[in-house]
Amino acid sequence: ASSDPTNPAPAANLELMWSLMSTYLSADPPTIQRNIVNHVEYTLARTRYNFDKLAAYQATALSCRDRMLEAWNDTTQFWREQDPKRIYYLSLEFLIGRSLQNALINLDLKENYNVALMELGFRMEELFEQECDAALGNGGLGRLAACFLDSMATLDLPAWGYGLRYQYGMFEQKIVDGAQVEYPDYWLTFGNVWEIPRVDVQYPVRFGGYVSSTIDATGKEKFVWQGGETVRAVAYDTPIPGYDTYNVINIRLWSSKPGREFDLQSFNEGDYIRAIEEKQKSENITSVLYPNDNTLAGKELRLKQQYFFVAATLQDVMRRYKGNPSHELRNLADKVAIQLNDTHPAVAIPELMRILIDEENFEWEDAWPIIVAVFGYTNHTVLPEALEMWSLDLFQTLLPRHLQIIFEINHRWMQVVSQKWPRQVDKMQKLSIIQEGSPKMIRMAHLAIIGSHSVNGVAALHSELLKTKVFTEFYEMFPERFQNKTNGVTPRRWMLQSNPKLADLITQQLGSGSWVKNLDSLESLREIASDPEFQAKIRAVKQDNKARLVQHIKKATGLAVDPTALFDVQVKRIHEYKRQLLNILGVVHRYLQIKKMAPAQRRSVQARVFIFAGKAAPGYVMAKKVIKLINMVGKVINNDVSVGNLMKLVFLPNYNVSLAEIIIPASDISQHISTAGTEASGTSNMKFAMNGGLILGTLDGANVEILEKIGAENIFIFGAKASEVEDLRYTERYAGGFNNPNLKEVMRALKDGMFGNEANEREVIDSILNVLQHGNDFYLIAHDFASYCETQATIDTVYADQAAWVKKCIYSIAGSGYFSSDRTIREYSNDIWNLQACKRPNPQDESLS
Amino acid sequence: ASSDPTNPAPAANLELMWSLMSTYLSADPPTIQRNIVNHVEYTLARTRYNFDKLAAYQATALSCRDRMLEAWNDTTQFWREQDPKRIYYLSLEFLIGRSLQNALINLDLKENYNVALMELGFRMEELFEQECDAALGNGGLGRLAACFLDSMATLDLPAWGYGLRYQYGMFEQKIVDGAQVEYPDYWLTFGNVWEIPRVDVQYPVRFGGYVSSTIDATGKEKFVWQGGETVRAVAYDTPIPGYDTYNVINIRLWSSKPGREFDLQSFNEGDYIRAIEEKQKSENITSVLYPNDNTLAGKELRLKQQYFFVAATLQDVMRRYKGNPSHELRNLADKVAIQLNDTHPAVAIPELMRILIDEENFEWEDAWPIIVAVFGYTNHTVLPEALEMWSLDLFQTLLPRHLQIIFEINHRWMQVVSQKWPRQVDKMQKLSIIQEGSPKMIRMAHLAIIGSHSVNGVAALHSELLKTKVFTEFYEMFPERFQNKTNGVTPRRWMLQSNPKLADLITQQLGSGSWVKNLDSLESLREIASDPEFQAKIRAVKQDNKARLVQHIKKATGLAVDPTALFDVQVKRIHEYKRQLLNILGVVHRYLQIKKMAPAQRRSVQARVFIFAGKAAPGYVMAKKVIKLINMVGKVINNDVSVGNLMKLVFLPNYNVSLAEIIIPASDISQHISTAGTEASGTSNMKFAMNGGLILGTLDGANVEILEKIGAENIFIFGAKASEVEDLRYTERYAGGFNNPNLKEVMRALKDGMFGNEANEREVIDSILNVLQHGNDFYLIAHDFASYCETQATIDTVYADQAAWVKKCIYSIAGSGYFSSDRTIREYSNDIWNLQACKRPNPQDESLS
Repeated sequence: ASSDPTNPAPAANLELMWSLMSTYLSADPPTIQRNIVNHVEYTLARTRYNFDKLAAYQATALSCRDRMLEAWNDTTQFWREQDPKRIYYLSLEFLIGRSLQNALINLDLKENYNVALMELGFRMEELFEQECDAALGNGGLGRLAACFLDSMATLDLPAWGYGLRYQYGMFEQKIVDGAQVEYPDYWLTFGNVWEIPRVDVQYPVRFGGYVSSTIDATGKEKFVWQGGETVRAVAYDTPIPGYDTYNVINIRLWSSKPGREFDLQSFNEGDYIRAIEEKQKSENITSVLYPNDNTLAGKELRLKQQYFFVAATLQDVMRRYKGNPSHELRNLADKVAIQLNDTHPAVAIPELMRILIDEENFEWEDAWPIIVAVFGYTNHTVLPEALEMWSLDLFQTLLPRHLQIIFEINHRWMQVVSQKWPRQVDKMQKLSIIQEGSPKMIRMAHLAIIGSHSVNGVAALHSELLKTKVFTEFYEMFPERFQNKTNGVTPRRWMLQSNPKLADLITQQLGSGSWVKNLDSLESLREIASDPEFQAKIRAVKQDNKARLVQHIKKATGLAVDPTALFDVQVKRIHEYKRQLLNILGVVHRYLQIKKMAPAQRRSVQARVFIFAGKAAPGYVMAKKVIKLINMVGKVINNDVSVGNLMKLVFLPNYNVSLAEIIIPASDISQHISTAGTEASGTSNMKFAMNGGLILGTLDGANVEILEKIGAENIFIFGAKASEVEDLRYTERYAGGFNNPNLKEVMRALKDGMFGNEANEREVIDSILNVLQHGNDFYLIAHDFASYCETQATIDTVYADQAAWVKKCIYSIAGSGYFSSDRTIREYSNDIWNLQACKRPNPQDESLS
Repeated sequence: ASSDPTNPAPAANLELMWSLMSTYLSADPPTIQRNIVNHVEYTLARTRYNFDKLAAYQATALSCRDRMLEAWNDTTQFWREQDPKRIYYLSLEFLIGRSLQNALINLDLKENYNVALMELGFRMEELFEQECDAALGNGGLGRLAACFLDSMATLDLPAWGYGLRYQYGMFEQKIVDGAQVEYPDYWLTFGNVWEIPRVDVQYPVRFGGYVSSTIDATGKEKFVWQGGETVRAVAYDTPIPGYDTYNVINIRLWSSKPGREFDLQSFNEGDYIRAIEEKQKSENITSVLYPNDNTLAGKELRLKQQYFFVAATLQDVMRRYKGNPSHELRNLADKVAIQLNDTHPAVAIPELMRILIDEENFEWEDAWPIIVAVFGYTNHTVLPEALEMWSLDLFQTLLPRHLQIIFEINHRWMQVVSQKWPRQVDKMQKLSIIQEGSPKMIRMAHLAIIGSHSVNGVAALHSELLKTKVFTEFYEMFPERFQNKTNGVTPRRWMLQSNPKLADLITQQLGSGSWVKNLDSLESLREIASDPEFQAKIRAVKQDNKARLVQHIKKATGLAVDPTALFDVQVKRIHEYKRQLLNILGVVHRYLQIKKMAPAQRRSVQARVFIFAGKAAPGYVMAKKVIKLINMVGKVINNDVSVGNLMKLVFLPNYNVSLAEIIIPASDISQHISTAGTEASGTSNMKFAMNGGLILGTLDGANVEILEKIGAENIFIFGAKASEVEDLRYTERYAGGFNNPNLKEVMRALKDGMFGNEANEREVIDSILNVLQHGNDFYLIAHDFASYCETQATIDTVYADQAAWVKKCIYSIAGSGYFSSDRTIREYSNDIWNLQACKRPNPQDESLS
């Protein structure tokens, strides 16, 4: 993989090195201890005098990494020999979270490490806590990518992930005075032991400049993109171990560095220091992950990130492909599949065209079918405001050659459109990659659909909406391209790691741990769903998990909550369409009801703890107001001694993967209550179901399929259906208000300042009231409020019958097999990528040979 | 050393870890091979398919580092137990160069590594070439610091160096069209295997803000520095092994990171990305080493670097001192000496006052004597334009509390001055720390002298000039403070490493290698200086070294030069006072003479290769013109077939430590021809002498002492003496030209365009002529030209008698023992620091116990 051909490996004597490398670290506790201590001494250069838990974690993680590297190298080598078709999963976000525990589980080393660390004087769990979350993602899309990589590794697929190494990942959220404050995420400050810098894997990436054209000997016009600024992309690898396999795969993240070729002479006259500072700016391309609120940002730096990512990735993919002398470029799609996780990497389509035509001398007609065969595109949203577009001017400035190619793609595409729909200008306007107007915009989704052989949504309902609402004509044109691939989540992290007691119970019950790789086998738990003994065990597990969460709540917020209460959870990005507002209005309603009750009545009320967590994009004012409102309400309720433990409200700051791992197994009810037709899939709903938490939700995203799999009687559904939403919006807008007395009561309480009346609180309340009162209720909160409250009341009733409740919990678990990301990835592999597994043989056998 | 007290080492069970750590890596080739291969596989994560020489170098270096870390840890631990007085050497520059070969030599591992690497298929020398120079210095001052650390380690002194970890070190010089072009130095791009990031050693550093004062319970006014911006300093350690000892010491370099406390809320409204970018700016404090042309720069960022450096260092020093419960702050000077390498770290004086008074509640009268006892100050220049000053306004903005303290220091100092010289305002003005005028300036040298118990120059002449010319009144006030410490250089790097053949020859001749630590023992070589057999061996060594340089010249410039010619070298920063211009004018003169000769005459001319190398500060226009002129002249001479090999001129680009190691051992004559009284010491002159090269020089800097040590007949001295310079400048300025016909001839040739006549060449020539013609000749080039040429002629004559020549060479080597930095450091240790060695016992004995 050397990028420096002048510096090859020496020809001779590698035999000795190879023989020294051909052994494997054994996994017995004394060897593990020796490795850990060696890392303490030689890698971290610590002594017992400056040795702390962080160092203990780092050394432990490094020793685990050593073992992954052996497998990583062997896997890479095995693939090189076998030459299978490969999938490259391109995602601008990977929300990996912590890696140590996951790696130990997947490598089956957890028990031996536990013993080794105990003897060294450490509790393994405390070391896990030292790890920073790798938070290179906003939410669902990024976490999906992480789950997918786990499944690809576990299924032995020849797969790599590609992304960006953001110096600052998702911001750290603190709650100050009830409001969100953002802090930079310093995840690399204490070093990231998992990443392997690949200083030998570097590629130049160009921005700006101009396109020159020449006529070659055959009279053909050739285009060359020249000039501008050159930035270097340096690779950082993160090994991803499969579960119960010898395969370890890779996420390759690119980091930007100043290009060497940049000419400093112009700066020389004056100020050398300033010249360097200018140069350092190119490092900033990968400095920050953009917080995303599902609206267009349109920032130049973001487009630079996208192209930087794609240009480095395709150079790497092409180098690997061309490294095998038996490969011919025209057969690229036989060996290479590229999945675009949303449109963020869609500029890969013109970039690969540029490479094939400008650099590899392909004819357009020969190149284009390769493109379509290579790329698949996953859509993640039906919100029109979230469909990515870039201004033509920006493209012209940064990527002049790509703009030319996009024009050519569009020109040919418009011919196809006008053949199908002759003389229908409206069709052409609607389907064009270029959106007319001022400024003209490039529709990245259109580009992605045209340039891919597969377009998929991420849940059945969502995929249906793509076909029938969002990309109707594209579906008419390419019905064969449109698919559904309902999301999934990895049971390794979301059950084995986050809920080890439940996992142990299931393994004990099923007689083997094979369910982890065959999650459908959970179905047999239905047979014992009413068994009191099993129910008791399930309840005990849940109670333990709730106790763990209670501890965390105490530590994070100082609030003591009752572990015997019903835990009612809504944790996800704060966004209007996800309707945290509906939840908090319901909380206020409940509070007002309780306040009106006599003490005797109160005794029959089911105690609840309402748990919120989630980040609002920094520029998303309304979402930040909702956070403030939640905390305003919480402050009043939590301090109301007359209500006591009947209601508590917690906003846990800085929601991330590690926090989710604590919250999800402790949930009784979790809310997935987006306005029907707005949430593409959701994946946390799957995690809650797997962990035996019941769902309160709308018929939106994957809730629809969860209902199908676990049974309608085991999920609490309310609210408008997707098919009704459009009409309802019209009705509500022109209805001039609503009549629900409970909602009116809630709004009066807010208006009267029951939850705060200071200027900044007033501002929040007025904004909220404005949304509901004046026909601005785009997300139908008022419409769904009544059925929401009714369903919440039903939940109380059902919860009172614990046998019935736990049965539903067990059905949730039993029915969630479908939502393993293994199933999802198997479908992608079969239906989109046409991939075969390539499983590295047992190294123990190998060493015998 | 944890900076996080909430994260202490666990109390129990460290015994097992400690016992696992208490072994040492053995040094036999198979163990070395195993270590190297482990680093290839586990640290670098390479396979034989992406394994190159860079990786081989890195793995080798890492395995060497492992062994240094064992010794580093034990040394640290031994000092902790013994609690000796320590010296902290504060230097903004450390010109370390490469480390691998040096480490292997000092650790006595070179032979075993050679064997180990040969069997693995590598030539050790080729791996050495893979290492980037650590070029965290401009020239002499920084290289001196590196030599000093080697000597401190070798002499077993309890010493640490402190500095800054510049992301970009000294710029990379390329020669394009004969002119210098600067490129950033990407020394960290491929990773620096020697540095150990100490993520647990971090300190906050404040800038700006304000000073508030309160009256405490006792009625005393207390000052608190508050507000402003806080940046974090993170430590990176580089182990420095002593030679023939078990001690390994440390250079701790600080890297700036954004402070966590910085408030982002103000940015929150709008643009999160921009807020992050603002924050990242604090990382830029340590991004670039300032190129220095010995004139005031006065850049805010540079003052930030200085204070950042000092604040982090003193926090670290104080933490270590206070970590021993038997230490009391009032006795600080019993255990801590701090040497200020030039005034760059002089702000340490008010900073330590601030700590003692504001944080540790000392009275001024108790604190000040501690300061003076702790600090020593080394002056490195007599050029008035190079004496550092900072504007009062800048100090007020960045360091308001320090400005207060400096005012108080000055106030008390002025009282002392007026006691000694009552009613002499001129003395007060001259001696004040504050220079009146607009803007008012803070004289850092005055601050350093007043706050130190020792002020030393770096050569006998220089120290004398400090007393008699530069700081006359200070000397009158504090005669006991003024000292001389003539510089030295480490024979480990400058003989053992750079000239192994000479070192072997000497060892063979003296019967042992003990001379490396006792360089005075070279004196006995005088006895065989005329021995033909020994002379032949010396000549053979020189010839080998010249052949190596010839190869390098060919590779770097494409020019083939004759290895039998006399190699005439001038390599150092390009600066007017160093008079590369005199050299090149002499070259032109020689060329013109040869051109006038008949072929028969030419046969008697001694063939010469003139070798130049050196960087000009990017903003130093005149120095860059000299580089251009050298290359213009070289182009004509090298292409003049009629002259052929009689003269060749080489400008080797990007002079650095590694290049010096090739050039110095190959030199016949080297030029150290600064105008007398301008060069503080020079150290390359010592390196050339040690390697048996003869010196052509003025009576300036350490040349004076070299003459004393090796004998006047073994050095070629010319030109004005320091005592004459002032008068000569006056004379020359008003003489209205000069009469030397040779110089006139040279100037006519330049003027006539013999060496170029294009516009950019014309500009260079006109500037040069202007310096010489119009009484602007501050550096007395015209005055010294005649004696310079005469002496060059003498050199030719002497060189013709090789027996006489080589005898001088041997006398140079024999007389250079005094110039070992071991001698210099012994003097510092005895006369300034009052230090005892603290030698770690033989670990083999230890392991027996």
